[in-house]
Amino acid sequence: MKLSDIAQQLDCELDGDGDIEIQGAAGIEDAGPDEITFLSNPKYVAKISSCRAGAIILSPESAPTNIPRLLAANPYLSFAKAIELFYRPPKPIPGIHPSATIAETAQLGNDYSIGANVVIGEGVVLGKGAVVHPNVSIYPYARIGDNFVAHSHVVVREYCQIGNGVILQNGAVIGADGFGFAPREDGSPHKILQAGIVVLEDNVEIGAHTCIDRATVGETRIGASTKIDNLVQIGHGSQVGSDTFLAAQVGLAGTTRVGNRVMLAGQVGVSGHLTIADDVIATGQTGIGHDVKAGSRVSGSPEMDSGLWLRNTVLLRRFPKLARSIRSLEKRLCKLEKAIQNMDDSFD
Amino acid sequence: MKLSDIAQQLDCELDGDGDIEIQGAAGIEDAGPDEITFLSNPKYVAKISSCRAGAIILSPESAPTNIPRLLAANPYLSFAKAIELFYRPPKPIPGIHPSATIAETAQLGNDYSIGANVVIGEGVVLGKGAVVHPNVSIYPYARIGDNFVAHSHVVVREYCQIGNGVILQNGAVIGADGFGFAPREDGSPHKILQAGIVVLEDNVEIGAHTCIDRATVGETRIGASTKIDNLVQIGHGSQVGSDTFLAAQVGLAGTTRVGNRVMLAGQVGVSGHLTIADDVIATGQTGIGHDVKAGSRVSGSPEMDSGLWLRNTVLLRRFPKLARSIRSLEKRLCKLEKAIQNMDDSFD
Amino acid sequence: MKLSDIAQQLDCELDGDGDIEIQGAAGIEDAGPDEITFLSNPKYVAKISSCRAGAIILSPESAPTNIPRLLAANPYLSFAKAIELFYRPPKPIPGIHPSATIAETAQLGNDYSIGANVVIGEGVVLGKGAVVHPNVSIYPYARIGDNFVAHSHVVVREYCQIGNGVILQNGAVIGADGFGFAPREDGSPHKILQAGIVVLEDNVEIGAHTCIDRATVGETRIGASTKIDNLVQIGHGSQVGSDTFLAAQVGLAGTTRVGNRVMLAGQVGVSGHLTIADDVIATGQTGIGHDVKAGSRVSGSPEMDSGLWLRNTVLLRRFPKLARSIRSLEKRLCKLEKAIQNMDDSFD
Repeated sequence: MKLSDIAQQLDCELDGDGDIEIQGAAGIEDAGPDEITFLSNPKYVAKISSCRAGAIILSPESAPTNIPRLLAANPYLSFAKAIELFYRPPKPIPGIHPSATIAETAQLGNDYSIGANVVIGEGVVLGKGAVVHPNVSIYPYARIGDNFVAHSHVVVREYCQIGNGVILQNGAVIGADGFGFAPREDGSPHKILQAGIVVLEDNVEIGAHTCIDRATVGETRIGASTKIDNLVQIGHGSQVGSDTFLAAQVGLAGTTRVGNRVMLAGQVGVSGHLTIADDVIATGQTGIGHDVKAGSRVSGSPEMDSGLWLRNTVLLRRFPKLARSIRSLEKRLCKLEKAIQNMDDSFD
Repeated sequence: MKLSDIAQQLDCELDGDGDIEIQGAAGIEDAGPDEITFLSNPKYVAKISSCRAGAIILSPESAPTNIPRLLAANPYLSFAKAIELFYRPPKPIPGIHPSATIAETAQLGNDYSIGANVVIGEGVVLGKGAVVHPNVSIYPYARIGDNFVAHSHVVVREYCQIGNGVILQNGAVIGADGFGFAPREDGSPHKILQAGIVVLEDNVEIGAHTCIDRATVGETRIGASTKIDNLVQIGHGSQVGSDTFLAAQVGLAGTTRVGNRVMLAGQVGVSGHLTIADDVIATGQTGIGHDVKAGSRVSGSPEMDSGLWLRNTVLLRRFPKLARSIRSLEKRLCKLEKAIQNMDDSFD
Repeated sequence: MKLSDIAQQLDCELDGDGDIEIQGAAGIEDAGPDEITFLSNPKYVAKISSCRAGAIILSPESAPTNIPRLLAANPYLSFAKAIELFYRPPKPIPGIHPSATIAETAQLGNDYSIGANVVIGEGVVLGKGAVVHPNVSIYPYARIGDNFVAHSHVVVREYCQIGNGVILQNGAVIGADGFGFAPREDGSPHKILQAGIVVLEDNVEIGAHTCIDRATVGETRIGASTKIDNLVQIGHGSQVGSDTFLAAQVGLAGTTRVGNRVMLAGQVGVSGHLTIADDVIATGQTGIGHDVKAGSRVSGSPEMDSGLWLRNTVLLRRFPKLARSIRSLEKRLCKLEKAIQNMDDSFD
């Protein structure tokens, strides 16, 4: 594809030779002469000089380069769209594979692709445009919106509700039983029937092997356009807002409230029965044990302000020195105390 | 259902109007006028005043309320039973789905429900009352007791042994190969055949996508009535006692011994070849690197007494101030030392 | 099997009665009179005296024992081979199970075992000797080498490339979409098409439910003979070297470079866009937020030198005492300052 055509399709201004042929998109360190790349983080601007790409997507404020530039207000977004020009995943096969098991009472919208060994239970409602890959299990009475994509080995459990445009990566489990037991008189655990559901709002994406547990009563809810990475655990009765990002291996204990536009980095853990307000950022491995105020940035386990945490990590590297200082201070102080005592004595 | 009927079925004393109609059970913040709720933790007693429920399950010692009360020695357990009055999950379809693949040498007890695409290998023994959801794989020679529930995508590997009343949530993997490699002369890893098995005793429940590895030799064992949450890793050769709770994303490295009635909160990690005695509690994200004595409560990574850890978290918030104090003490001490020196000099 | 035969097959020198019958292999604490065991870590040498095994594999430098010895340069490796003499997992059933769905354009090598409900998509190439257990999904155009073993519920996504001798434990997901979103003008997330692939080099083993995400562009690569445990997350675009070990629940954020012969213990987390050089060891739960130099041993979150971390853990146990010392020093210093002041005053 000619660079000038790419510029037109991405709606970017072209600065340089539009006649060169571009065959693909690649990262700034890997791109070759027939590929287009991008730079959006000014931190990496030094990488442009050694870049071998055929063209680069940059912001209009960027300095001129040796290679042709496409000028875009949002270079990252334009690069994302450039990828779409060159790559198409394999097309889903239309229709229902003969090995699929669809209950007679299930209702399917139009334009579906239902793969081999898919099982769809009694009373399931599935909107139009669904792509359900092989070996997916949808339990009875789940209700799912339009343009659903479920990769192989996904599970949607009974009665759960899924909005439009939801994507579930391989092995995501929506609505397994929450972890709830009431102690009997003798201390042994009585399993509490998990009678609630999971609700995924529109445009949610759930990563591979992520587990979102059904509520004991009521619902576990994930807000619109929230994106959850792989191997995440969402405990029963949790409520997550919209446009929130939960990175891989995050865990929410249960009845945890997470606001809108929150970003929890990898392996963050959050205790139950607490509230993380809007726009909070938690860095990797943070252990959140208390409510967190809107707009906070937290780190550490248990969590503290990220600035404080950063100062502490510097202090921890000097901790043995600090401890030695304390011991040395004690010795010097003892010596002084004796010196003073001697003086006092000599006055007497 | 009339409240008086509920009282009778739950074996609770009724205090208030037994004629009101109750349609369901809900949490104290969500329950409406046709729902019953409960309160067991005195910490939340203030929530009763704003509660809109039609009735509430409380302990006999509780203060009178504006809404009808059911008095129960164990309100949480009675609420769990109230949920059972109102909710029934979809009934499993009896028999064997025609798409299931059952080896001829497999032995099945009575009253089973074997779902679509289930695969049961050679020599498997499965007790009576089994509910095996679609897409479950049971490898050859697994032996499983009565009233087994396996949700879709469960795996039980070869030769593993499962007791009565065991529930496996979606995607649980019982008996995958342990992580064992012996270094060859040239340093490259030689895979050690994992010849052992996993034993799950009676009434164990295993969460979604939890992995319990088979032992290299001998067995990995989970004791009776122990409950394990989602995405937990149990390394090969570990031994977990009875009535123990392992919350989501916990990891036991291997050859780890965990006692009875232990509670490990979310994301706790435990090193290999060590022993956690009975009745230990570890808070979230604790990293256990040493043996832990019976009845201890531990926190932090590496673990320490939870009381000490709590004091430390307070001190860590003041760490920059403490470090400044040390520097300030040093300066003041230097000044004093000089002052004393001057005095000494003036005496000379 | 006679002990003398075992000695011959393991190529070990026999010291003791070669006529005794050995029926199996077991760990040093569990082995009975008809079993063989081993000891390789000198730390556990005291366990030999209470060992009830019929025979023991030891290094040639070991002290004589009451039970027959097999002398091996590498007792752990010889024990691994002893296990292979006594245990054979169930034999895979040759051929293609009738319930499997194989695309017409897929190419299979010889000597395969393709289990029930396996789905192999268009254009897949699979080498000879493959053992594909039930309910595995291989997406279109995946290319897989010889002697592939995929346990049930494995997923290999479109276009991914897998070398020879690769073993995938149950539920491993190779090539799910990476977690990539570009913010639109209004702040909402635009899904970035994940156009790259995953490459697994020869003799890689991947644990149960481990997720290795496909790259946005280019590839995510796992080097030859690297072994990855269960429930590990490898973010998109990461590059892992050869002979590296990643223990259970490790997470690499994305575009993370990990060298050769690295060992990351359980629950270690690594941020994105950084480099861990060769031969690094990180202990359990380490949180790596910076580049790590070759041969380093790191611990803590964020990571620091393991020796420093160990000293710090001792200091943290004394932290309340240290803080009290600081307060006490302040008081004593105040007192001294006043005393000096008084002396100064008395001179005036």
